[in-house]
Parts: sequence; C-alpha cells; structure tokens
Amino acid sequence: MLTEVGRLARAASRKMANAETKTKNQALCSLAGLLDQSQETILAANRLDIEAARASGMSDALVDRLILTQTRIDGLASDLRRVAGLADPVGERFDGTVLPNGLELWKQRVPLGVIGVVYESRPNVTIDVAGLAIKTGNAAILRGGKESMHSNRILAELSQKALAQSDLPAEAVQFIDNPDRALVLALLHLHEFVDIIIPRGGEGLHRFCRENSQIPVITGGIGICHIFVDESANADKALEVIRNAKTQRPSVCNALDTLLVHRAVAPAFLPRVVEFLAPAGVTFRADEAAMGYLSREESVQTAGPEDFDTEWMSLVLGLKVVGGLDEAIAHTNAHSMGHSDSILTEEDSHAARWVKEVDSAAVYVNASTRFTDGGQFGLGAEVAISTQRLHARGPMGLRELTTYKWVGKGAYQIRE
Amino acid sequence: MLTEVGRLARAASRKMANAETKTKNQALCSLAGLLDQSQETILAANRLDIEAARASGMSDALVDRLILTQTRIDGLASDLRRVAGLADPVGERFDGTVLPNGLELWKQRVPLGVIGVVYESRPNVTIDVAGLAIKTGNAAILRGGKESMHSNRILAELSQKALAQSDLPAEAVQFIDNPDRALVLALLHLHEFVDIIIPRGGEGLHRFCRENSQIPVITGGIGICHIFVDESANADKALEVIRNAKTQRPSVCNALDTLLVHRAVAPAFLPRVVEFLAPAGVTFRADEAAMGYLSREESVQTAGPEDFDTEWMSLVLGLKVVGGLDEAIAHTNAHSMGHSDSILTEEDSHAARWVKEVDSAAVYVNASTRFTDGGQFGLGAEVAISTQRLHARGPMGLRELTTYKWVGKGAYQIRE
Repeated sequence: MLTEVGRLARAASRKMANAETKTKNQALCSLAGLLDQSQETILAANRLDIEAARASGMSDALVDRLILTQTRIDGLASDLRRVAGLADPVGERFDGTVLPNGLELWKQRVPLGVIGVVYESRPNVTIDVAGLAIKTGNAAILRGGKESMHSNRILAELSQKALAQSDLPAEAVQFIDNPDRALVLALLHLHEFVDIIIPRGGEGLHRFCRENSQIPVITGGIGICHIFVDESANADKALEVIRNAKTQRPSVCNALDTLLVHRAVAPAFLPRVVEFLAPAGVTFRADEAAMGYLSREESVQTAGPEDFDTEWMSLVLGLKVVGGLDEAIAHTNAHSMGHSDSILTEEDSHAARWVKEVDSAAVYVNASTRFTDGGQFGLGAEVAISTQRLHARGPMGLRELTTYKWVGKGAYQIRE
Repeated sequence: MLTEVGRLARAASRKMANAETKTKNQALCSLAGLLDQSQETILAANRLDIEAARASGMSDALVDRLILTQTRIDGLASDLRRVAGLADPVGERFDGTVLPNGLELWKQRVPLGVIGVVYESRPNVTIDVAGLAIKTGNAAILRGGKESMHSNRILAELSQKALAQSDLPAEAVQFIDNPDRALVLALLHLHEFVDIIIPRGGEGLHRFCRENSQIPVITGGIGICHIFVDESANADKALEVIRNAKTQRPSVCNALDTLLVHRAVAPAFLPRVVEFLAPAGVTFRADEAAMGYLSREESVQTAGPEDFDTEWMSLVLGLKVVGGLDEAIAHTNAHSMGHSDSILTEEDSHAARWVKEVDSAAVYVNASTRFTDGGQFGLGAEVAISTQRLHARGPMGLRELTTYKWVGKGAYQIRE
C-alpha cells in the first residue's frame, strides 16, 4: 500500500517541480481560505482526538499539544499567506561558468523531490509541512501521530483540495491514514520514492528514524546549549544575555542548558547569576568548584553526573567553573549536541578561537543562544533545525528543501 | 574495536579542522615524497595482493584493478601535489547579513568531520581519499577490499607518517586493517563518530551501504545515460556527439546507454547511427520501431525487455524511437538513474523543457554526456559523483567535503 503512495508522490513531485510560482502561491492561498471556511469541521475532528486522548488517560500537558483553536487555525492560515509572499527558490541559477571548450555550465535550484515527514502529536505540522512543500515544488508524505489522526486527516484533505483547485496534483500532499506503526518503518525503507526524511518530535523519534531509515534523515531539534563567560566579559550585559537564553522560552532547543564561568571571575560572578535568575524561577545544578562560591540554598544543588549531558527544557541551569578558554571549548565540544553555543568576551582572539573550534551548527560571540531560529535568521520560514552535518546545518528555510541540477548548454561539444 | 577507531578519528578531525592551509598542504607534499621514496615497498606489498588474487582464481580483468605500477604510483604522487595547489574551501564565509538588531550573521565553511569510505579492489583509492580528506581538514576511516589489504595497509601507513611529519594527528587517516566483513556493518552503524559514508564501487556496494547505514550515504557512480535526438538536431554534429558519448570511454558511468530518436528523423538518422558507430565496435539493441528502419545485421539485435534499464559499461547502445519531446522526457525520467542525460536540438523551447523536466544530476543541451566529471567541470578534484539528492548532486569536489556553521557576532544582543 505504501509503495503506491510513494509512486503517486513521485509522479506528483515531477509535476510540482514544473509548476509556476504563481500557481503554487495560489494553492497556498486556497488552502488558507479553506482553513478559514472549515473551522467548524476542523474543530469537530480535533475534538474527537482530544476526547480519545483524555479517555486514554493522556496528561493535560500532552493533550494541550493536540488542541486546535480558532486562534491557532487563524495562525496557520496567516502563515500560509506569508509563505506565499516569500521568494521562490526554485529555478535560481548559481555557480555559473563557461568551460574552455565553450560549454556553458551552471547549477539550477530544483525541488528535493519527495519529503517524508514523521511527526508526533501537534496537528499544525500537517499544514506547516504541506505549505512549505507546495511552496518549494516538492511532494510530501505525512505520517502524523495516532493521537491526532482525525485532525491530521481533515487538514490533509483540505491541502489536497487546495492543490486540485489550482490544477496541481492532489497527491503532492499525502497522509498515511492508518495508525499501524509498521507503516513508519515501511516509509523509512521507501528509498525508491522518498528523497529525505524529516522527523519532527523528540529524541526517541529522531533516533528511530536515524537507525532505521534507508533514506537520508535530517536529525536535529535537540540542543544542550552552552554560554561561556570569559574573564573579560562585561558582567552586567552577560547577566542579561544569560537570563534571556535561559528564561525567555525555556522549553525550546536553543535555550541555555549549561553556563561555563572562567575561574578568575567565578567568585564574583556566580553569586550574581543566582541572585539575578532565581527570582525568575531558575534553579541551579552547580559543579563542585561552583558550589564553593555559592551558598547552599533551595535553588542551588550540587550537580549530578548526568547533569551536564541533559537538555533541561525547563528553568534548570547547570553551572560549571572552567580554567579558561581551552577547557570551555573542550567541555562544550564534549557535551553540546552541536546546536548553539555562545561565548561572552571582550577578547577578540578568544572570540575567534571559539568561533573556529566549537563544532556546533550555530556559534555566537556576545549574543543569546535563542537566535538560532529560521525566523530570527531571516529565512522567512523554518522547516527544521538540523544538527547533522550533511546538506544543511542549523535553521533550514525554503532553500534547504531544494537541491540543484547541473545544466550544461553547448554547441555539440564532445570530450577530447 | 571500531568504536575506538571512531573516537580517535573524531578527536583527530577536531585538530584537522583547525589546521592551517599551509600545514595541510605540507602533509600532502610529504605524502607525495613518501610515495616517491617507498615505491619498492609499495610494489612488494602489492605483489602479495596480486599473488593471492591469482591463487584464488580471480579473473585477469579484476586482477588488473589491483595492480600498482611505478607509473601509477607516480600518478598518485603528482595528484597529491596538484591537490596541494588547489584553493582550500575551509574558512570561506558566505550568505553574510546583519540582522535588524545589529547581530552580524554569516555562514562559514568547515570540514564535514569524519568521512567513512568503503571501497573495493583499487588501492589507489586509499591515497586519493587520504589526500582529499587532508586537504579539506577532515578525518577519514578507510575500509578497502580484502583483496588489496596489503597494498592499502602500506599506503595508509605512509599517509599517517606524512601527517605526523607535519604535526597533524596520524589518526586523521585510519585504515580498518581486518578483512572481517562484519566491520563494514559496524562502520555503517558508527553514527556517533562518522558523519558521512562514501561507497566507491559497484551497485551492490552502494545498495548495501544505503540499506544498512545509520549515517547519510552518498550513493552514485551508476548511470543509465540518454541522448535524445530531436527533430531539429543537426544530424552530422549529432553523430559526433553520440560517438563521443558512447565510445570515448564506454566503461564509465557517464557513457551513453540509450539513444532516443524523434520519429520524424528516425528513418534517415538511425541507419546513419549504425553506419557511423558500428566500425568502432558498437552493437545495438533496437526497439521494434527502430528495427523497422534498420537491416537486421550482425551488430543490430532486437532489444529485450531489460535492455532499456541496463547500464551497458561496454560498446552496446540501446536505440528507441519516440514520438517527440514528451515521450523522450517521460522515457528518460522512467529509465535514467538520474546521472547524465542530453538533448540534441535546435529548438530553444525544447531545450528549455528538457533542462527543466529531466530530473537528473546533469542535464545537457547539445553536448556529450561524458562531461559529467569533477575534472571536466573545473572542480579541481573529484570525490564521487552523487546521484542522490541531498547535500551534493553530480560531481563532488573539495567543497562538497565541507559543511558550514552559522556564526553570529554581536554586542550582547538578546531575543525580544
């Protein structure tokens, strides 16, 4: 059954690759309009998912991720209209040259082809991915979580309707409408028809995809993020950056997890960190050296052996004293997941070494780690944040859903 | 055991990533010098492989792929010196911007990290890959074929010696010195330490890697290449291009496999193709329509059902009559492996549709398919020819052994 889904997606992707920008944008606006018109139907389908989730004893926090509201649907529609307004990367030419024999050669940006997306509860991903795939001329095969099956089904149907309304192939967005988990594995093996797998979810999902896929997987979305406060950092400004990175939205992957502090400034600086962040609800896990400068109070605990390998996703902050730049870089490369890491320093040579030697998707000098985001980086849209190294690293925008072909235009040249 | 190899490679890759261009080039020149000085030792090791291969009953053609000669070793050394002279892609900055809040943002090219290369008999791959890895600041884990184990071992040892002579980590080039096939599988599962797998060999090896790897694999090197002779093509020039694409080096992946001829010109053109190419030893597999225009002679046979899905690697050419551009594109997309396909036409609108709609790594207008090659494309060096779609498509040069990191340089900016 999935082979047929794949075959249809491949055929649709060829048509999508040749679609005009105008037509693709029209489909996006149609879909936005259908979301507006179908709010009642969508909310009714969503209620079925929510009731089933509650009946199964799902926690309120998890149920919350399933919930669509009028406001959330409005948000999806306005996102689609915004994506319609972005530049179309397909067709861009680059790296052009003329070979000595006169052959004109360039790279031309084309869609990736067929994108397989495996995601968990949030049904907004269905519209999000459908919209980005349509914009970039790709086909998408969507495999959402069982718990949002009703919501995903109606959202996928609307996507197909919008495609058909613009004379684009409805099969460019397909939804695997069957909760059997074996189908996830089948999708990961469909290399003949699927060009890339993008997991959207937790670490377990990413690992499952990486370990089982015969198709390249974009893994990411998990970060153990560091800030290193160097001896020369401006302490007042550093406190603001640390508070921002830790507390502005603690549940996301670019939030701060571990603060490294230079030994020379640790005695004065660490108590100020606790004083500045504790009122925001932050609690601390301090290594032995850091504990030496802090009074043991409710918010400060000694760090355990796993604490510097933990993505907190909450208002917990690891504190560690380091001897200097070398130790800061070594600790970061050993414990970071390669997402986002920042140095706070007034010393240019230290900044340069941090930038060069810290092996992460985003490295910062004197800035919050919270900037690692497609919207913040001006990409217009965000597909995923990649922490693997091939194809794309860090925030992926529309362009990262494309590849290129080489085009050679000649006058009957032959190879000598 | 392989975990330790991986751990050492990862550590070495961090040092290689920070190495100066000058130092890396020095290591390449050291290696070239060591090859010059060690010819006797290399040839002695190579003789052990050749004797074992002959004793095992290996065919002369396969044994030939194992053989190193003084000339071949000289060639390897001069390739290394040439690579030393190429520009270093590491450190290049691109896509720079300044965000509205003043944060300077750019992408900076960095090595991929650790490259796993799985290859078959040819021992030259050892030096080839070692050289490209050193140049691009990567570490490489090499897994050559059992049949060239002695040759590979000495070549890997010389690579390590050259690294050490330049104060670079010897572990940046590691060779899996054990013929146990289980180690290939272990390498493909070493995702913690290996960032990319590049198979160099036949279709079976590529399939094995794709199906078993937990690390992204660059598949490629296999092409069923097409030329479509449109109604408007210049017949005389077309014959030269076809002969070049088929006969200049028939055993390689960018050689022509299938010739598609527009129905309107088939009656006159097809007999000329046979007349022009048969003297070069070419034999033909013609579909029924093409047979109608050809006399059944020794070199012309009726095509069987698999013949248009065969990479010939020899002086065989498939011939097929098509109704026009639509059928030519549809046939090509259905039967090509996405490597290299060319249209011969004087009609710009047909050329444009071919370029847009044929979904291959390299698409040509009025040129031989034989140009798909890193050297021909001016890339300076060729790592592989990719027919998958992520990261790189078509010929991969030095730059394709790199990725990027995002660098954000600020003045204590925080996210609002």
